Amino acid sequence: MARIPMRAAPGGVTAPAGFAAAGASAGIKRGRKPDLALVACDRVAAAAAVFTRNRIQAAPVVISRRRVRRGSARAVLINSGCANCLTGPAGMRDALALGREAARALGVAEPSVLLASTGLIGRRLPASRILRAVPALAASLGRAGHRRAAEAILTTDLAPKEAAVEARVGGRRVRVGGMAKGAGMIAPSMATMLCVLTTDADVEPSLLRSLLQTAVARTFNRISVDGDMSTNDTVFALASGASGVRIRQGSRAEALRSMLEAVAGRLAEAIVRDGEGATRVMDVRVEGARTDREAQRCARQVAASPLVKTMLAGGDPNVGRIAGAVGASGARFAPARMEIRLGPRLVVAGGAALDVPRGAVRAWLRRPTVPVRIHLHAGRGAGRMLTCDLTEAYVRINTGYAT
Amino acid sequence: MARIPMRAAPGGVTAPAGFAAAGASAGIKRGRKPDLALVACDRVAAAAAVFTRNRIQAAPVVISRRRVRRGSARAVLINSGCANCLTGPAGMRDALALGREAARALGVAEPSVLLASTGLIGRRLPASRILRAVPALAASLGRAGHRRAAEAILTTDLAPKEAAVEARVGGRRVRVGGMAKGAGMIAPSMATMLCVLTTDADVEPSLLRSLLQTAVARTFNRISVDGDMSTNDTVFALASGASGVRIRQGSRAEALRSMLEAVAGRLAEAIVRDGEGATRVMDVRVEGARTDREAQRCARQVAASPLVKTMLAGGDPNVGRIAGAVGASGARFAPARMEIRLGPRLVVAGGAALDVPRGAVRAWLRRPTVPVRIHLHAGRGAGRMLTCDLTEAYVRINTGYAT
Repeated sequence: MARIPMRAAPGGVTAPAGFAAAGASAGIKRGRKPDLALVACDRVAAAAAVFTRNRIQAAPVVISRRRVRRGSARAVLINSGCANCLTGPAGMRDALALGREAARALGVAEPSVLLASTGLIGRRLPASRILRAVPALAASLGRAGHRRAAEAILTTDLAPKEAAVEARVGGRRVRVGGMAKGAGMIAPSMATMLCVLTTDADVEPSLLRSLLQTAVARTFNRISVDGDMSTNDTVFALASGASGVRIRQGSRAEALRSMLEAVAGRLAEAIVRDGEGATRVMDVRVEGARTDREAQRCARQVAASPLVKTMLAGGDPNVGRIAGAVGASGARFAPARMEIRLGPRLVVAGGAALDVPRGAVRAWLRRPTVPVRIHLHAGRGAGRMLTCDLTEAYVRINTGYAT
Repeated sequence: MARIPMRAAPGGVTAPAGFAAAGASAGIKRGRKPDLALVACDRVAAAAAVFTRNRIQAAPVVISRRRVRRGSARAVLINSGCANCLTGPAGMRDALALGREAARALGVAEPSVLLASTGLIGRRLPASRILRAVPALAASLGRAGHRRAAEAILTTDLAPKEAAVEARVGGRRVRVGGMAKGAGMIAPSMATMLCVLTTDADVEPSLLRSLLQTAVARTFNRISVDGDMSTNDTVFALASGASGVRIRQGSRAEALRSMLEAVAGRLAEAIVRDGEGATRVMDVRVEGARTDREAQRCARQVAASPLVKTMLAGGDPNVGRIAGAVGASGARFAPARMEIRLGPRLVVAGGAALDVPRGAVRAWLRRPTVPVRIHLHAGRGAGRMLTCDLTEAYVRINTGYAT
């Protein structure tokens, strides 16, 4: 993985030139909370996306999947508070009407508006209320609107998630920015989340798509909050080209990939850290598996284990739970050769849990980020997952969500 | 599936003729709780077993797997409070010593003693204490000892789990009995549990093994508490032949399979109902999948979903979570044709969540057993899972377990 010198940039999704954003309350959520976001490009942007692989897909996913095939877009309209999923033909009509209204307000072609929704499944959108809110939302678009937009896409998230980086590419400044929401229903294949990535690089849609897929595979597909895969997961990438930096292949493409991955990686970590009820994060790295695939499966099994996740919540070492999840993953290895490290400390080796000072292990288990390294000594495969702890608060949040 | 007339019998694991049981406190757990159980047969019993498929296997699993290949056994020695797993060569020596002591106390051949352990992973057994307790345990064996034995194998279970049935086979009475423990780490492939099934039928080891495998596939492999697969899962079946009823094939074998399945099914349901922190059970049936395999995967995904399980805890309908899990399962179907019923009530059809009276659905969701039927209208595959709710108590139990 090539590393290019890059630094943080201000401005989230509007950090790259050519983009504006806005957020508002359209009355979908109670209490006038922001629930409608718009990101727009001042020209036709190259566009790519990755969607949920859930068989049940929300209306905006169905529509955006079709539209993004054109390889270009002008705007993304996102609402929170309602997933517009399991809403049948009526839900499709609602989503189309919203897109049409946004296109009218922006003066752009209807199919150039991409859509996303997040929130409760199985409820209709309050479409007329949203339609009334769209013109003012479009009128308030600006580079300063990135924060309001990031706030308006949240559901049970506690904090908005934004990131942006910049680097010199071909002698000129290129920026990549993004915003995301996460919180619950985060996992197995793509996190249950929405994300918009933007860049001012000048890049063809097909290259953008392939760079996006790599970045997503290495970031959002490596986080787990609760192992559920949502019906609405979507990551959009829009490229305005406003930096004037043409990226076609080679080291420039590699640079853009690094930047996309950096922004997506920060947003993915922010999603795990803000997982429903989460108090800390576990960084699970698996090495020495027979294949990368087995390593990743192993990391995923550890990261998804309720017993590992409750141990993390309690901050009390019970390394047998990690070993049990490794053994259940289907990865092939000799148990006697497996090594597990918690922080720098070797805790399992030679087929046995080692007798290590409880206090030292406990201190590592109570850090904000708990590093776990598993070496299977069966090959060269490597994998990694980020996960959060499973707390009583997660259960509390999710037992009452529908009411 | 053939049904034969059968009725409940008294006595759990000692209901079938030829078996005796005992339970005692060996000081593995604190507070003199029962933690050591013995089940013995007064003659050489045909024996079969099913073990965990976890790559990490406890010492008693390694030993019993080898011994049960002989197809016969005289006794099963089980301790709770310590899994004797991840204990390396020392753990193997401990397990062998316990088996040797039990063989000596019973006056039987050492390899005819099967072993199982359950409890915390990564700690050594207090072997000398257990060795001292074995002779008295063996001396107290009796038909009345089934309850004490069932109590001595529990970990975080709240109640002992026993069942027994009897039926007329070939004109004579045959009984099947059993005991089990469950509570946490229950799922994906075999529940994390221990179970001893006994019968007084006269059956060859190879037939017993095949009947046991079918019964386990239809019962213990269809329950889920938390999706974790343990390192110690074991189901033993012992047949004394004391009824004098020879079972070789055909309708008699079918009758014995039904009886094994009935006892295993009751124990499996008892395990789910007594899942850690559980307050109610969901019975997930999937029909109309393209294959039985896809149906079972679909049922498993729904049963394992934390969002479905927390919904069940809250007793508040949010049927989109069920649909989301169905869609994430990998089963192939047309979303518009899927139907979901909660109790008798159709709640999802035509690609949409139906507008049903909230009170009626809520009443169904708050029953001790909540029936969910999913019809995919894509074929004839059927599957089923029993699962329990995910409550704050589950998290509380598992954050503090090691201390």
